[in-house]
Amino acid sequence: MVEDKHIDLAKPKIYPSWTNSTIRYSDLDPNGHVNNGAINAFFEDGRVCFRNEHMLQLGDDILAGFVLVKFSVDYLVPLFFPGSVDIGTVVTRVGRSSYKLGQGIFDGEKCVATAEVVTVSIDSNTKKSQELTHDLRAILERAMKV
Amino acid sequence: MVEDKHIDLAKPKIYPSWTNSTIRYSDLDPNGHVNNGAINAFFEDGRVCFRNEHMLQLGDDILAGFVLVKFSVDYLVPLFFPGSVDIGTVVTRVGRSSYKLGQGIFDGEKCVATAEVVTVSIDSNTKKSQELTHDLRAILERAMKV
Amino acid sequence: MVEDKHIDLAKPKIYPSWTNSTIRYSDLDPNGHVNNGAINAFFEDGRVCFRNEHMLQLGDDILAGFVLVKFSVDYLVPLFFPGSVDIGTVVTRVGRSSYKLGQGIFDGEKCVATAEVVTVSIDSNTKKSQELTHDLRAILERAMKV
Amino acid sequence: MVEDKHIDLAKPKIYPSWTNSTIRYSDLDPNGHVNNGAINAFFEDGRVCFRNEHMLQLGDDILAGFVLVKFSVDYLVPLFFPGSVDIGTVVTRVGRSSYKLGQGIFDGEKCVATAEVVTVSIDSNTKKSQELTHDLRAILERAMKV
Repeated sequence: MVEDKHIDLAKPKIYPSWTNSTIRYSDLDPNGHVNNGAINAFFEDGRVCFRNEHMLQLGDDILAGFVLVKFSVDYLVPLFFPGSVDIGTVVTRVGRSSYKLGQGIFDGEKCVATAEVVTVSIDSNTKKSQELTHDLRAILERAMKV
Repeated sequence: MVEDKHIDLAKPKIYPSWTNSTIRYSDLDPNGHVNNGAINAFFEDGRVCFRNEHMLQLGDDILAGFVLVKFSVDYLVPLFFPGSVDIGTVVTRVGRSSYKLGQGIFDGEKCVATAEVVTVSIDSNTKKSQELTHDLRAILERAMKV
Repeated sequence: MVEDKHIDLAKPKIYPSWTNSTIRYSDLDPNGHVNNGAINAFFEDGRVCFRNEHMLQLGDDILAGFVLVKFSVDYLVPLFFPGSVDIGTVVTRVGRSSYKLGQGIFDGEKCVATAEVVTVSIDSNTKKSQELTHDLRAILERAMKV
Repeated sequence: MVEDKHIDLAKPKIYPSWTNSTIRYSDLDPNGHVNNGAINAFFEDGRVCFRNEHMLQLGDDILAGFVLVKFSVDYLVPLFFPGSVDIGTVVTRVGRSSYKLGQGIFDGEKCVATAEVVTVSIDSNTKKSQELTHDLRAILERAMKV
């Protein structure tokens, strides 16, 4: 297992992969803040962009075998409409059959929320977890470094 | 063309097909009303349920060839959380290559919004509109009656 | 009543007011297209930006008295993730107690969907429609021209 | 601090507070599963219903002072359209200035996802965490028991 333990997800400089998304009026809650659901959708966009950037070469068959099993988010400050956010994504751990991403959402320099996400590789026949392939492991380990 | 012109979409009794959906907290706008986007999603659920109820027998190939081209909605009264709505759907016109649905969203007896929706049958090769099949026409004409 | 009748909503050049929004992975339907709900949310963002750009000077009291009563959209071509859209908004009619906006969503040069939206001014006490104020009428008539 | 440590969030019987929500077609991902964002919205609905059921008596001023700071979810099995879910919510810890909820989403008997959510009481002037009031503490401790 390769793990980066001493990482501060609220620091932009740790992220090698970035995407950007805009806030929608329909994201607003009755209290005038952006709903957490929109924050979570931004994290998802960061993960999909990370996958498109680094993992498409693995082919659809392998990609279909990944399942997001754990999503843990810290909401730091409220977000408002209109505006846009930058979403950073980094690999923080590569395990036997799973890997972990760290993510941060930024409103300019300000970190709005951070997340940790665990994805497991699943054998499509047995539906059980299976070892990460050598190719994937190499990709993920490269993506741990800025 | 078969058309039902004198139909009042705000009257529950005109609808042969019904589904139900719940309002979510995240549907709320800053003004405390349910966002129009949620209203529109309820209409979509009514259409998908109509399709599942009446049209699945046509097979995936035929269903894939339909494209929603026009959606027109009248918002009548605001809707609030928590709560649920009933969505009624009826066929109001069967044309050569398209058909029209009428829809109503109800909060109890009260009509919240009505919609008209035009769907066109598209030839998957030429991407042009094509005549409705005899089977589909028969299904749609049956669904015009309560 | 002032009305611009001969307007093609699919032409970018007619729009004096623009905003931009990004597509989210969660906007995708099972068929891989962006869901109509996201398209409708883009139209809403265009309207809110139009309001923020032209009408904030009217004050909250007046703005709270507007109700969107009719939304009619033509979906022209499918939209995909990832990507972003430009949303144009123009005033097409100024009536006694209501006004109409025309809107277009563009993926580069390509028009994805157009919409017409009717908003009515409501007296907050009687809940009935009321005449547009002179100030609002002046703002809207100015916004009819590119 | 009062804490219930040995609690299995995937067991329906632990939950004293329940609500129900329907799945929407627009919740579906390109892979035909319900998007995690919808799952997260169901959890939110469970929390809002818990608040409406147990905490409204505290008054708006107190309720406005709570901030959700941490949301951690385990996704167990995929969810499909159409259908509905039951959402259970329980208090699992009452701390000095924060409390923790446990939640479970159920598709019939089957647990689809579980979540842990930390909410902090914030002083509206200093924006710092403040001790839970005696009344709130009493409410929360009662809600720890089925």
